[in-house]
Amino acid sequence: MEFFKVRKMFEIFDEILKFSPLSSFRLSLLESLGRFLAEDVRAPEDLPPFARATMDGYAVRARDTFGARENEPVILNVIGEIFMGKAPTFSLHPGEAARIATGGMLPKGADAVVMVEYTEENEGLVEIKKPVAPYENVIQPGEDFREGAKIFPAGEKITPAIMGVLAGLGITEISVRGQPRVGIISTGDEIVPPQTIPAPGKIRDINSYSLFGAVQEAFAIPKLYGIVPDLEEKLFQTLERALKENDLVLISGGSSVGVRDFTLKAISKLPGAEIICHGLAVKPGKPTILAKVGNKAVFGLPGQVASALLIFYLLVRPLLLHLQGAQKKYLFLKKILAKAGRNIPSTPGREDFLRVRLEFSSEGLFVYPIFRKSGLISSMVEADGFLRIPENVEGVYAGEWVEVYLLP
Amino acid sequence: MEFFKVRKMFEIFDEILKFSPLSSFRLSLLESLGRFLAEDVRAPEDLPPFARATMDGYAVRARDTFGARENEPVILNVIGEIFMGKAPTFSLHPGEAARIATGGMLPKGADAVVMVEYTEENEGLVEIKKPVAPYENVIQPGEDFREGAKIFPAGEKITPAIMGVLAGLGITEISVRGQPRVGIISTGDEIVPPQTIPAPGKIRDINSYSLFGAVQEAFAIPKLYGIVPDLEEKLFQTLERALKENDLVLISGGSSVGVRDFTLKAISKLPGAEIICHGLAVKPGKPTILAKVGNKAVFGLPGQVASALLIFYLLVRPLLLHLQGAQKKYLFLKKILAKAGRNIPSTPGREDFLRVRLEFSSEGLFVYPIFRKSGLISSMVEADGFLRIPENVEGVYAGEWVEVYLLP
Repeated sequence: MEFFKVRKMFEIFDEILKFSPLSSFRLSLLESLGRFLAEDVRAPEDLPPFARATMDGYAVRARDTFGARENEPVILNVIGEIFMGKAPTFSLHPGEAARIATGGMLPKGADAVVMVEYTEENEGLVEIKKPVAPYENVIQPGEDFREGAKIFPAGEKITPAIMGVLAGLGITEISVRGQPRVGIISTGDEIVPPQTIPAPGKIRDINSYSLFGAVQEAFAIPKLYGIVPDLEEKLFQTLERALKENDLVLISGGSSVGVRDFTLKAISKLPGAEIICHGLAVKPGKPTILAKVGNKAVFGLPGQVASALLIFYLLVRPLLLHLQGAQKKYLFLKKILAKAGRNIPSTPGREDFLRVRLEFSSEGLFVYPIFRKSGLISSMVEADGFLRIPENVEGVYAGEWVEVYLLP
Repeated sequence: MEFFKVRKMFEIFDEILKFSPLSSFRLSLLESLGRFLAEDVRAPEDLPPFARATMDGYAVRARDTFGARENEPVILNVIGEIFMGKAPTFSLHPGEAARIATGGMLPKGADAVVMVEYTEENEGLVEIKKPVAPYENVIQPGEDFREGAKIFPAGEKITPAIMGVLAGLGITEISVRGQPRVGIISTGDEIVPPQTIPAPGKIRDINSYSLFGAVQEAFAIPKLYGIVPDLEEKLFQTLERALKENDLVLISGGSSVGVRDFTLKAISKLPGAEIICHGLAVKPGKPTILAKVGNKAVFGLPGQVASALLIFYLLVRPLLLHLQGAQKKYLFLKKILAKAGRNIPSTPGREDFLRVRLEFSSEGLFVYPIFRKSGLISSMVEADGFLRIPENVEGVYAGEWVEVYLLP
């Protein structure tokens, strides 16, 4: 058993990518929001399937309109009307036009639409007062998506727009991966459930509940396993059961040296457990433990409430999304730029993640660190995101542009 | 019936705030993620309830350690150990110290903790090699949240961190407002359900499905009412039923002038309907209709697939969040800053919302417009957000900092 396997963030990230995504199954399109595609999706046909008008007006042959002007309109024969949702029963020959509404199917021979505003119809003839270019006011077949093209790669996140595309292509069921089940264990003789009035020296469980929410936010399914007293055997039993019933287990709460040892020992006793890290070169988050047991993961999170949630966002959330088959670009928090609102010191030698607030002023978007103890959950309540200061940097000057990772 | 009530975005926004939020009810904390508090929350007690150590070490009276050095340590009497989760059975007098672990309760008389790294214990005495200031390595009672303080205002969004705080304060049930039910109607003789193979001239329903996802994303509950042919009476019947069963109805699909007229007429026929806007001075989104019927809303969305989704994000989503009791700051999309990656023209006289992509390069975060027809849903698939160009601005130069609204 290695007791001090202190690792850096990017190393742990590599280890996370070695887990296998959960197995896939078919899901109704209407239930798929926020899930990740388990397979590439190809367009089974052109979208749209035919040339459509994007304006109300007249379907024409564009070259018939060349030279048309307000005072010298081109005059075309109106040979009919295209009914919405019907294929035209005629073709358009030189000198001819047909009434068409937005969304209507262009007749054979037509390649553009003149907006009704630039026309005047009278006794079967229409004056065209402005020329159109070929394909003007027309969506061509396959202009949105072309038959056979790979339109979404596996791991793409299903957004409302993608739901629309899939419906438009007749795809009403898709292949996605399962949602990871996550067991949450709190440890610590000082921790009592929120329903309890704490006796002196005791404090209610915060971590189980903030982690419960964070797991839901990552589209995974949390389950609470309650509070385990500081006893190695008791922790091992609960851990074994939680690991059996879940894809990932989070242990949090006890942060004293003694309890941390229990956590490490209990994890190490799991058959086949491989300790990937015991100690993280990240501030805050030093006491983080990650173990791999088959394709399941056990995290020992820092007991400090703000640190536990921060490490969740830095490491647990990426793994939960990876297990759902998400592309790498989705694993980490969204990154934006903002100006440091003040000088921000940082101790070199360790990657530093500061909780920060964002504030718009007339001079731009500013970021302010929330310097508050990691044991205070209020610091996470106020945080809009994290500011990362690399290990070889001593801090940031007021007014410098910095990268901020936004909380979900 | 007013046929042309063209309004500006900010005017519509004011109208949205006039709707009453839905009624409130009690919900279990574990189900509350993403909901909005219906009432102010006050701390019923201090969090934490007592002074806690944030480090493993020795509880001391800070002034006893003043002047301590590596080579000239202060020596204190170790009078006992504080057990985790227990109130100390003793008080600390001058010259005394007690072993304490992270999270332990400070004994009376102690006001700081010396980290174990700066101590050495031997036969009941401990050498303190570094002074501590009062309150160092200690979280004071109420330092996170103070008894009686208003800690969250009504309308605050429940995040994982807030779930943790509420649990920590013993609050396991909270008051939230209902999730709006949203009926979605598609219109248009050319539209068929996604399960159908479209005959020539027909096209599958995209809007119902992208809107379904967007409604879910806004924590509301969508219900599809299918596709209604271009008949005023048929639309009225479906609309009447949908409005009865929901808090808000979205009509989309038909975008030709004729169909738009049907939509307006059907809406106007609803008893008590007040047309708030018919036409929006926003590009794209001109044909938007909003009506208020009692405290319910009916939107006639543009038929163009990308425009319908954009207007959803600009107007419908804010109303859905407002009905859930969200504070004003949550109603609109999150705003960030990015540099224009190229010159971006815009027609003055109308507020312009461009779909945009964001791209990080070594020189910062750049934003690129997606110039593609509003009838193409692919433009929304690729979009990271919207760029707003006010009506009196002619465009943006490459390299200028601009405000970008991020899609959820």
